[in-house]
Amino acid sequence: MLKFENLLQKATHNLTGNITDKDDEAKTGPARVVVVGAGFGGLNVVKKLAGKEGVEVELLDRNNYHGFWPLLYQVATGALLPGSIAYSLREIASHHKNLSFRMTEVQQVDLDQKKLATDTGEIGYDYLVLAAGSANNYFGSESIPHNSYSLKDVDEALDLRESILSSLERASVETDPEQRRFLLTFAVVGAGPTGVELAGMLAEVLVPLVRKEYPNLDAAELRLVLVEAHTNLLESFPKGLQKVAGKHLEKKGVEILQNSPVTAVENGTLTFKDGRTFRANTVIWAAGVTASTLGQGLGIKLAHSDRVPVEPTLNLKEHPEVFVIGDMAYLEGYKGQEAYPMVAPVAIQQARVAAANILASIREQPLNKFHYFDKGNMATIGRKDAVVDAFGIQLHGQLAWLTWLLVHLYFLVGFRTRVLVFLSWAYNYFTYNLGARFLGGKRHQDRKEIITF
Amino acid sequence: MLKFENLLQKATHNLTGNITDKDDEAKTGPARVVVVGAGFGGLNVVKKLAGKEGVEVELLDRNNYHGFWPLLYQVATGALLPGSIAYSLREIASHHKNLSFRMTEVQQVDLDQKKLATDTGEIGYDYLVLAAGSANNYFGSESIPHNSYSLKDVDEALDLRESILSSLERASVETDPEQRRFLLTFAVVGAGPTGVELAGMLAEVLVPLVRKEYPNLDAAELRLVLVEAHTNLLESFPKGLQKVAGKHLEKKGVEILQNSPVTAVENGTLTFKDGRTFRANTVIWAAGVTASTLGQGLGIKLAHSDRVPVEPTLNLKEHPEVFVIGDMAYLEGYKGQEAYPMVAPVAIQQARVAAANILASIREQPLNKFHYFDKGNMATIGRKDAVVDAFGIQLHGQLAWLTWLLVHLYFLVGFRTRVLVFLSWAYNYFTYNLGARFLGGKRHQDRKEIITF
Repeated sequence: MLKFENLLQKATHNLTGNITDKDDEAKTGPARVVVVGAGFGGLNVVKKLAGKEGVEVELLDRNNYHGFWPLLYQVATGALLPGSIAYSLREIASHHKNLSFRMTEVQQVDLDQKKLATDTGEIGYDYLVLAAGSANNYFGSESIPHNSYSLKDVDEALDLRESILSSLERASVETDPEQRRFLLTFAVVGAGPTGVELAGMLAEVLVPLVRKEYPNLDAAELRLVLVEAHTNLLESFPKGLQKVAGKHLEKKGVEILQNSPVTAVENGTLTFKDGRTFRANTVIWAAGVTASTLGQGLGIKLAHSDRVPVEPTLNLKEHPEVFVIGDMAYLEGYKGQEAYPMVAPVAIQQARVAAANILASIREQPLNKFHYFDKGNMATIGRKDAVVDAFGIQLHGQLAWLTWLLVHLYFLVGFRTRVLVFLSWAYNYFTYNLGARFLGGKRHQDRKEIITF
Repeated sequence: MLKFENLLQKATHNLTGNITDKDDEAKTGPARVVVVGAGFGGLNVVKKLAGKEGVEVELLDRNNYHGFWPLLYQVATGALLPGSIAYSLREIASHHKNLSFRMTEVQQVDLDQKKLATDTGEIGYDYLVLAAGSANNYFGSESIPHNSYSLKDVDEALDLRESILSSLERASVETDPEQRRFLLTFAVVGAGPTGVELAGMLAEVLVPLVRKEYPNLDAAELRLVLVEAHTNLLESFPKGLQKVAGKHLEKKGVEILQNSPVTAVENGTLTFKDGRTFRANTVIWAAGVTASTLGQGLGIKLAHSDRVPVEPTLNLKEHPEVFVIGDMAYLEGYKGQEAYPMVAPVAIQQARVAAANILASIREQPLNKFHYFDKGNMATIGRKDAVVDAFGIQLHGQLAWLTWLLVHLYFLVGFRTRVLVFLSWAYNYFTYNLGARFLGGKRHQDRKEIITF
């Protein structure tokens, strides 16, 4: 398939298609494309440009891996190995001569000089793709980021996993009943897909784990609370599925606190907007994201959530050689005139358009506009249960879960990660050994080590 | 097998065998056995006492896992998952009613009061097994522990792995040739089995990794040095195998620096006793161990390497209810009158004797003396190569490696870990994907993350 594409590419390629750039020393060489960020957007730009003539691609990321974040919550609960959802960027880059990878943090973009300032020196470009994604949105709170866990990368997921297991260990030797119940209370803030999946998973993992391996603890003292600022959970789903998800979560033992916007988290106390408080030793923030701060240095007026406004061809009006995609990009057109949501399918589809437009630009062909093909929404509510809303069909329960599983397996980057994830799932499914069987090492504060196998 | 043992146990058990202890409230209850440390020694005591009537066993460890340390060097090089060599202590304890586990750090032993001071409160005992193992021996140097990596637990192995990969990343953007060669120099100090295995593995992993995934680097600039204080590597092996190991290592590209005792490591410079120096960005300390500091608070005159002198029945002369085994114990009798070496087989065999002696003591039967059955020595020198000295037979090469592999697989604690390790090895073997395919997450100093997949 790839070979055929290469042949086709060679046959049709316009060799004179390099752009003219007055600063470019080697005008007859390939165009230098720099891609910032190796999430769903950046990675798909790179995949699309891999092996193509006329372009030389350098991928930049501050980590050395692509993370399959939709499954990160499973790492946090110990159901999956971090390695199962991470894919080596050097490995990807090593398969094609026109790709290279650099582990670096981009500090500033100089649009006029066409170069980036990074912590490993300056990097020039002919074409730039900004795909640096998003960060957690704490809505201005200073206390929340320091007193809650979140799920933005492998390291955060491992920190959370460590905290969950430490809470159990501490509770198992705690003699004060109130303090013990506090240690056993987990609050997930935000009832979007991430929050719902995490809350469902925690319920499924913690209850049997405590029953089986913590004879000193009473599983009835575990308390899992899903906190949502608004009325509905899974806001982007149809009403029917929202209700199903809520019922199923409650059946698993998850309490749902609606209409409870959190304004502060301090010393294990969540404070809500109306002054109410709630005590939980482990607080997980899944209440929203805002675009990468990289957009702020561009000298462009940013849109909602600090996203960078782009043309329908996904590049900047004043700098057509700069493309912005995924969570960082602001473009209206979703369901009429909303901005496209900050979700993986948008990033992936924008990546393909951006990559094609770079090639078109090199060949001096007209650029394509981005059109979104909405494949729908899905979220799991634990093992064997999910809600799916796609192509006008709404599913829940086991069939929905199977759909969710197949779709996620299909999109996992490499063959090996796919096999690993599948084997882990199969193992967990048949042995009921969900959780606490996979590991990663993190140093505990007092140098004890917790591992989840 | 286990069931049969239990039946046998029930049939022959002397129910009146509890010791009398004036501080024990429930004199008719089972004897309370506390085991400190879940290494090879402690774990085997627990396994031996599992399901036995008349004893209630509490296992204490500051980590929540048993680590199969002989394969830790493979975690450090990314060839194995940390999870493949770690086994959940709560999982082990959950299989038997008379076992429990507590994650805690023992601070002091009060032999007279028969109780332990720990960071989770006081713990009383009728019988105590001290099996806290050993720590690195830096021979009094203050600089070495802060400026070198070592291989004593999963966390240290992951720190080392992180450093190795960071060095490659930094070297790949380093323009100064001298600094680049410095970043690419790795020194392993100590040519015992751990040092030899690590050096061999590093050579096999790093050279192909750099060739394949670091196009900016020249694999010829990699430098791997094995530093040994004395003349011979693998001191405990026969001369012939020492030579074979040395030759094979050199063939893989490992330089061997003999007669070079290291006295300091600072800013990437190793200083030798004779004043010579050597520059290496990554220094790994594998030059010896000393017994756990727990022995120092016992009020007993300690032997060489701070080991606790024990009777041939493995308990203390003045406190026969306290057993000390493994690296912590000092007992002569090896090869005539040497102290038994600090190796896993000694700890395992002592554990069985200690456990049997605790049961014998409860039943008021005579205790057994420890007799060591020496099964020999083995060490790998990379994939498909090892040296084995056992039962008077000396092997090297592929057959020795196969022996090594089977023995290590056999001794891996659980079925699942055995399967995982085997699959990982098979995968690496057939795909030539050794290294950089397995992961664990560690936060880089500047919040970048390196993962080895």
